[in-house]
Order: sequence, then structure tokens, then C-alpha cells
Amino acid sequence: MRIVEIRDVAVPMGAPMRNAVIDFSKMTVSAVAVVTDVVRGGEPVVGFGFNANGRYAQSAVIRERLAPRVLEAPEEHARADGTTLDPRAIRRLMMRNEKPGGHGERAVAVAALDIAVWDAAAKIRDMPLWALIAEDAGNPAPEQHIPVYAAGGYYDPDKGTDGLVAEMRRYLDEGYTQVKMKIGGATIDEDRDRIEAVLALLDGDGSRLAVDANGRFDEQTARRYAGALVPYGLAWYEEPGDPLDFSLNASVVATYPDPVATGENLLSLHDARNLLRFGGMRPEIDYVQFDPALAYGVGETIDIVAMMAEEGWSQRRFLPHGGNLLALSVAGGLSLGGCESYPGVFQPFGGFADETPVEDGRVRLSDAPGAGFERKAALNELLRTLL
Amino acid sequence: MRIVEIRDVAVPMGAPMRNAVIDFSKMTVSAVAVVTDVVRGGEPVVGFGFNANGRYAQSAVIRERLAPRVLEAPEEHARADGTTLDPRAIRRLMMRNEKPGGHGERAVAVAALDIAVWDAAAKIRDMPLWALIAEDAGNPAPEQHIPVYAAGGYYDPDKGTDGLVAEMRRYLDEGYTQVKMKIGGATIDEDRDRIEAVLALLDGDGSRLAVDANGRFDEQTARRYAGALVPYGLAWYEEPGDPLDFSLNASVVATYPDPVATGENLLSLHDARNLLRFGGMRPEIDYVQFDPALAYGVGETIDIVAMMAEEGWSQRRFLPHGGNLLALSVAGGLSLGGCESYPGVFQPFGGFADETPVEDGRVRLSDAPGAGFERKAALNELLRTLL
Repeated sequence: MRIVEIRDVAVPMGAPMRNAVIDFSKMTVSAVAVVTDVVRGGEPVVGFGFNANGRYAQSAVIRERLAPRVLEAPEEHARADGTTLDPRAIRRLMMRNEKPGGHGERAVAVAALDIAVWDAAAKIRDMPLWALIAEDAGNPAPEQHIPVYAAGGYYDPDKGTDGLVAEMRRYLDEGYTQVKMKIGGATIDEDRDRIEAVLALLDGDGSRLAVDANGRFDEQTARRYAGALVPYGLAWYEEPGDPLDFSLNASVVATYPDPVATGENLLSLHDARNLLRFGGMRPEIDYVQFDPALAYGVGETIDIVAMMAEEGWSQRRFLPHGGNLLALSVAGGLSLGGCESYPGVFQPFGGFADETPVEDGRVRLSDAPGAGFERKAALNELLRTLL
Repeated sequence: MRIVEIRDVAVPMGAPMRNAVIDFSKMTVSAVAVVTDVVRGGEPVVGFGFNANGRYAQSAVIRERLAPRVLEAPEEHARADGTTLDPRAIRRLMMRNEKPGGHGERAVAVAALDIAVWDAAAKIRDMPLWALIAEDAGNPAPEQHIPVYAAGGYYDPDKGTDGLVAEMRRYLDEGYTQVKMKIGGATIDEDRDRIEAVLALLDGDGSRLAVDANGRFDEQTARRYAGALVPYGLAWYEEPGDPLDFSLNASVVATYPDPVATGENLLSLHDARNLLRFGGMRPEIDYVQFDPALAYGVGETIDIVAMMAEEGWSQRRFLPHGGNLLALSVAGGLSLGGCESYPGVFQPFGGFADETPVEDGRVRLSDAPGAGFERKAALNELLRTLL
């Protein structure tokens, strides 16, 4: 049993919106297919993967470094018991001749390929990816009904506050109960107006609204915003400062009574652990948001959850960034506290399977083999172009 | 005044040796040329740059992300006073639409291009790069006579301990007084034998020998090696554990009386600051080794030295990784404590100008305009292929 071919394509996101730091109109994503020598119904089993938005496609790292190392060692692709691929062994092949530290584009490229390998491994076992993840992690009770929140509220010059409110109303109409919007791309007074407009839609219930600064603020601004946000009792205040400025983060946490959330731009277990050790984060109050589709993929995320337990954190405080079917599978298999969703944006990667409605803020896991990408028609159509 | 063209080429290193973690035979490096519209002697002024070894060439990041952003905003290339290019403004262009955190391949790609921009900026001023760096950093007394140590002692199955000693003898014959060798790629007993063989050549003076584990050890092994090294009173014990495991580093430092050195795999100012804040490093004893040709280039390194001062560190504790003319220019311009050198390896990038001998463990800065790459014939020949 082996992988016989690895294909990838760089897909433009073409998304017109921006957050406080970047404009997504030039963003790209790598979609990856892993073709195995296992045949089902006359067709080879193929696993699919992609990286999450925000870090660009990684064709060069995949083609020049990762794929050749995997393909030159086919004898290490399968589990010893022959039941399916061994994603952890394949991940070790990818990382041959890579130095420690410097977790950037490589983490993103490995993630896209690793996800495709896990998808294939689950399909070969004819089981959903969330169940394979639960098995690997030793989780006896994977979560079947995942809390999701709708992430949007990007800045768009043509949209204005009316457009923001209309966007959030659409999410509520779709069945979401909790939403997230951007802050920090306008003045603090403008952001206060935007927040209050959305809160009016949520019956003034701050616990249904999160705000995201995308790491933009310096310490003084981060604390000034914290002060302005306290009266609203928000669900969380996300990424106030640079993701690696653990002292800044600790300074915000020390003065902000409600939850702080961060971690989507920490692209490895080592970086994630440093946040828990040095970032002042409170295991009973705050959230971490590492993204499996940016940070080395599924195996690394299982290891991150084990690390969280060692550092005194419940996996329920982990709400993965990414808003896609992979993140949903991971959230289910590891019984995380929930999962981001991008219902309106980052198509066709954002969002979940077509036939799975959001009901009272939750989404049911699919019983499709693998991650279930095939059950999202627009995504499936894109992935099929790799074959 | 503007940059009119950016060219790059991926160069195989073709080096047969390995350290405790990687094999260099498949390593590549990006060489970059920045062509300006400034003409001298009938020829355009061209700046050159390259990244340091260990992180692969970065053509895709340079071509797809950095170069287009720079070339689409020529009005921001020059300083307001028109005297030369503005490398910090050009660096800001490179980083448009890049998210914070995740400092990996991007840091390496920016470094190669940033170095070429600084080289061009110094050539336009008709001054050495070290002098331009000193001016930018406000350093009134750049160091003209830089302490260097010879880094080698890689594992090579055909070399053995006799080959290791012969290699080190060659460095001493060339004028080096301090040398560095790898550890951790063999058993601790074998490494002890290798260390003692080299120490015999150094009249038993441990302060002339550093050892480098390349981040390989877990905490228990790192501390076991620390215990084994204490009797030798070595110059330093380099990168005992994963570069981001600050707790492991602090644990080693706490039990090891002699200098610990680390930092070459921390690819940004934020990561460097976290090492100083959380890594247990002692400002009076230990060394940091950030690499300007891996970590965003010259401007970031100037900012790192300013950060070190804020954290209570003298720039004399900074010995940059990289062993090339760029690192030497930075060490001089910022009056760092010295500079690595790769006299025998990583050619044609490793080592200094052809006509500058190592005298009593020091190298004189060149008065050539820019970084002086043109004064190293083999390197100059390679860089000319970009034109």
C-alpha cells in the first residue's frame, strides 16, 4: 500500500475583503491530491487537502521538498498492520532534511499534504476522518454535533455598517447563533459604532459576538480597545497584538475580564506551547485557535491537544481557526469546544457540506468517508480538477 | 531613483556533509540581483544578496510575492533626500499583505532580497555596507577588525576523527584561533573522543573550542551532554535543544556554568526577543546567534540589536550565524562580538574576501563599496550569472 502520485494546484481566493492587516484579493491556496494504489470500485482511492486562507499557496515547498521525499520512500507509507496509510510516518518523510524552528510556509505546505494523507487513510478504512482522528488520539467520545460560529464582518469600502449588519443577519437566518467581526481597520469610535450595530441585532447579548483585531495593535492600543470592549461582555477579544508578542498578550489578559482568544498565526506545536507557557492565558477563561490547515496538519493538532492537557488546558478551550470541513473533522474527533465557520467567504474552501444545515449554532458531523470534501459540490468540483 | 529589475537564481549547495539533524547534499540557496536605474561608469548599479545555508532557496516567495510588490511601487524606493535607496521603505513594500507571525521561508526570502537592496544602497553612496549600517544604527564606532571563528567539524562517514583533526589543523594554519565542531550526530562517548582529539590540537584550551548540537537534543540528553562538557570549559555549547523550546534552554542554562549559545533558527525580531525574555539566557555569559541572511535581512538585524539593548543585552554577546561577507559587514557596522566563518564549506557563499587573511583570529573589513561580494572571486562569478 503506497502513495503513487502527489498533485497540487495554486487556487486564487479572489476574495474582495480585507481585515485590519491584509487584503485578500491576491491570496492563493494550495489544493493537493494524494493518489494511492488502493482501488475501490475500479478507481484509486484519492485523498484531498488544502491549506487555510491567509498564508498563500505553497506549490514550491510541496513540489521541491515534501513530495519527492515522500515518493522516494514508498516502503514507509503504510501502517505495519497494512490496514491503511501511516500519516505520521509520511509526515516524518516530509520533514527529512528540515531544520528545527522557523515554522512558516513549510508548516502550511506540510498541512495541505498531511490533510490529504489523512483523508486518504480514512477513506481506505472506509470511515469518517473524525473517527480516525478520535481513534488515533484515544478519544472515546468524539463530538458529533459541533458548535460553530460565523466569522465575517470584514472591512469593505462599499459595504459600510448597513452591509455589515445585513451580513450578520444572513448568518443568523442560516442558523448561526454566534458571530465574529473584524476590528482595528477603522478608528476606535467607528469600531464602537460597528459593534453596537451588530449587538442590536443580537438583542444586546455580547456573549454572541466576538471581535478580531488580527494582531494589529501595539500594547497601548490593545489595552485601549480592551477598555472600550469591557462594557459589552463579548464572547472573546481575538488576537489583540502580534501573535508572538507574548508579553503584550499577557498585559491585555491581565486587564481584561472576559475571554481573550489567539493562536491562528502560531504555526507549530512549539509556538502553541510557548503561548500557553508565556502568554498569560487563563485556562478557565481564554481560547486558543490554532489552525490545523496552517500548522502542519492533523497529526500536529492531535499532538497539540495532548500538549494542552500537559499544560493544564482542556481541549474544550480550543476553537480552531479555518472554517472548513477539515477543521470540523478535527473539532469532532478531538472533542474541541467548537469550530470557526466562514459561511459567506473563502469559497469554495470555506463552510461545510452542502446538505448539513446549521441548527441552533451547531453542525452535525457527516458519515462520509474521509473529511467529506466530496459532499460540498463547489469544493468537490475544484478538487476533481486535480485528477 | 528606483529598482528596475529583481532577478534570482536557486543555487545547489552540493555540500556532502551533515550535522546532527540534516544532510546538506540537497540544500539550495537563493542568489538575488537588484538592478537600479543609477548608472556608474556606464553600467547600472546592481546590489546582490543571498540567504544563508540551511533553509533552501526561496524563488517562489521572491517571484510571486516580494518582487511584484516592490516593482509596482517605484515611487517609494528612494530616500526622501534622494541620496540612495531606502531599504526600510522597500522592506515595507515586500511585507504588504503578509500576516504577522509564521516567520519561516518568508523571512529567508525577504533576507536575500533585503541584503541585495542594502548592497545597492551602499554602492550608490559609494561606501562600504558596514559604514551604511553603522550610520543607520547610529553607531559612531563600527568595528574594523572582527573576531571570527571557524565553524566546521561536520559529520562525514569518510572523514573520521583523523579527518576532523586535520580539518581543524587547517583552520589554525589559516590564522583562526577559535573553532567549532558538531556534536549529537554520534554517541556521547564518540563525541567525547572527537572533542578531546580537537582539544589536544588546541593545547587543551577549551575556550578555543565551541560545540554545536543543532537543536537535536531532548531535555534529558541536553542536560546529560551539559554535564559531560563542563570539565572542558568550552567557549560555548550551541543549540542544545529545539530553538523554540525556551523552557528546555532555560533548564540547560540553569545547570551549565559556561556559555550557552543559540538563535540561528529564530527567524525574526519577535522570536529573538522571546528567547531573551523566556529562554533563561544570561546577558553576561551567553551568546545569541541570529542570522541576518535568514531573519529578514539587515534592517531587522539593526532592530534586533536595539531590542537587545532594551532587554539589557550588549551587542557584543551577538555572534551572527552564517559565515559570509554579509554577516561580517553586519558584525562590523553594529560592533557585534564577532562573526562565524565557514572557511572550508558552503562555497562560494561561505568565507570572506579573497585578499583578506585571517590574522590572529580576526578579519579586517574591506573598503569596497557595498558588502564586498565582488572581492570574493568565486562568489562574484556566480553573482555575475544573474546579469
